[in-house]
Amino acid sequence: MSELLQTVEWEAGRVRLIDQNALPAELKYVELEDWRQCAEAISTMVVRGAPAIGCTAALAMAMAARMLIATDRTLFLQRLETVASALKAARPTAVNLAWAVDRLMRLATETQGTTADLKEVIQETAVAMLQEDVEINRRMGRFGADLLPEQGGVLTHCNAGALATVGYGTALGVIRAAKEQGKQIEVFADETRPRLQGMKLTAWELIREGIKVTLIADNMAAALLQQGKVQCVVVGADRIAANGDTANKIGTCALAIVASHYHVPFYVAAPVSTFDMNLPNGSGIPIEERNPEEITHIAGERIAPVGVQVWNPAFDVTPACLISGFITEQGVLKPPWPDSLASLQTRNSAAT
Amino acid sequence: MSELLQTVEWEAGRVRLIDQNALPAELKYVELEDWRQCAEAISTMVVRGAPAIGCTAALAMAMAARMLIATDRTLFLQRLETVASALKAARPTAVNLAWAVDRLMRLATETQGTTADLKEVIQETAVAMLQEDVEINRRMGRFGADLLPEQGGVLTHCNAGALATVGYGTALGVIRAAKEQGKQIEVFADETRPRLQGMKLTAWELIREGIKVTLIADNMAAALLQQGKVQCVVVGADRIAANGDTANKIGTCALAIVASHYHVPFYVAAPVSTFDMNLPNGSGIPIEERNPEEITHIAGERIAPVGVQVWNPAFDVTPACLISGFITEQGVLKPPWPDSLASLQTRNSAAT
Repeated sequence: MSELLQTVEWEAGRVRLIDQNALPAELKYVELEDWRQCAEAISTMVVRGAPAIGCTAALAMAMAARMLIATDRTLFLQRLETVASALKAARPTAVNLAWAVDRLMRLATETQGTTADLKEVIQETAVAMLQEDVEINRRMGRFGADLLPEQGGVLTHCNAGALATVGYGTALGVIRAAKEQGKQIEVFADETRPRLQGMKLTAWELIREGIKVTLIADNMAAALLQQGKVQCVVVGADRIAANGDTANKIGTCALAIVASHYHVPFYVAAPVSTFDMNLPNGSGIPIEERNPEEITHIAGERIAPVGVQVWNPAFDVTPACLISGFITEQGVLKPPWPDSLASLQTRNSAAT
Repeated sequence: MSELLQTVEWEAGRVRLIDQNALPAELKYVELEDWRQCAEAISTMVVRGAPAIGCTAALAMAMAARMLIATDRTLFLQRLETVASALKAARPTAVNLAWAVDRLMRLATETQGTTADLKEVIQETAVAMLQEDVEINRRMGRFGADLLPEQGGVLTHCNAGALATVGYGTALGVIRAAKEQGKQIEVFADETRPRLQGMKLTAWELIREGIKVTLIADNMAAALLQQGKVQCVVVGADRIAANGDTANKIGTCALAIVASHYHVPFYVAAPVSTFDMNLPNGSGIPIEERNPEEITHIAGERIAPVGVQVWNPAFDVTPACLISGFITEQGVLKPPWPDSLASLQTRNSAAT
């Protein structure tokens, strides 16, 4: 088994990221020296996955704070707020990004002292969030592993692994934990068009650890479930509304409908920071639409006919009624929603 | 509007095919001089689509018959039978291939006369099947067009167009007929991994005719239906069992489940030659598994990590209970199955 991946790192004032656009051909790192580079790394998907972009944005806030020359506290906070807004705009759907940035902004506002004190506490907290993320994933993994069969197939979509977090992963963390418990799990990975994170990242991550993985095209999941090869589905999430409606990578909703049709349990593994209790349901979740070239071009080459119109939403919303359980660091939540969701300690978790 | 595509042609003893592997970059034709080249064109998908491979195989039989030097009738039929078996093995799932070949084999066996007479009747019938295919498609189109909304979105999967037939198309024939009737139809086309026939062929074919088409990744269909953008789904078929279970391009079953979930009608457009009344249900339909490189490589480039295991079935089976209607040249069949299916004149149709 290879060493655990560290997707997001802080090294003496710099942010070090695994360049996910270079995988699986090459495991390459990029070093960022400025918060704007972090924002760009988020929007160009050098780093992706709700928890990973949250932590990257937190480090970007620490970087920006360090570099601010304002000694006036009000001016410092104003300028930091500008940075916070720009970071939050880098990608709209995953709430962890806004959650991390807002957490640090609130911390700065509430902390007494000089701007030097603020810089210190922001950096300390941002760096601590990396370790916290891995711990949360490991806790989720232990809770979620109990839901997996002793032996069987688990289907996942996109990448909710070490590469989508600081390390260990949400959905893949649950699979890792089940393997650590000795369960005989075989993973099926949707390739996840258009950007193929399942093919490029999930398959790579699992092969690297010696976990058996079979790649399928997204449209093969129904045939797989029809043949009884999958005992449960586990995915991550980008934003979960108060009623349990869940935004995740495009294709998740189809998978949930298919799983429900075949009576296969469908679990969402996500830290509490993914829950947006300000939204009553999924209709309020902003869905990012990305460049049509993600569909029309593959590996830099145009595949589609010239002039074709394209619809390319990056996420979809799975209605809560199709979800069998949420695996969080506070335990597993089960229907009926939203009663069980109301039990989440989101305030404690969001508070600094 | 461009001239109607002629996907399969007979020209003075040669078979002329549109090279579908060259689309959409180039509209290029290949000329085949030998039945073995036809078998290879079928297995390498230079020509694909159940009706188109049926007609190509019929012409291949005519070619093989012409070239047989046996004047002894029994020997002639024996040798032709060898050709028939090889052609049928080129692709296992679509029954139209076997149907066309068996039809000519039966004709040869039942025809009195010299081997020269047999050669003539085989060629005449094979060539007539091309025109027959277009006429069948036009009849299906007229029946099916009535099912489409006056105005709205129609989702299709893979390519069941002019390129999947001799011309006009099955599912796209229905859309063409609806447009000819003045209906305001907007088409949504699944890209159809792994071979991207929706992106490369359906989008190209519709753009060429000025029919509005929007391309999506296969996994986006659920979000599209959730948003009410689609009023009905129409697909083709490769083999339909006596109870209505339908084998079609991988991804069709997921689409049928999603359509059923959102109460969107799901229609299968297929000539009667696609019905295999010898199979009581879909479990007996052979499902072709193709090369893993169709998934791991795109545009000749490896995308997937080395060593990943792949599952690549080319078709899946949609249970009859998820199908709202079969559009055939004999009319539209509606549930309950298999009562309505029993009304099909398959014997007349299969008879020469």
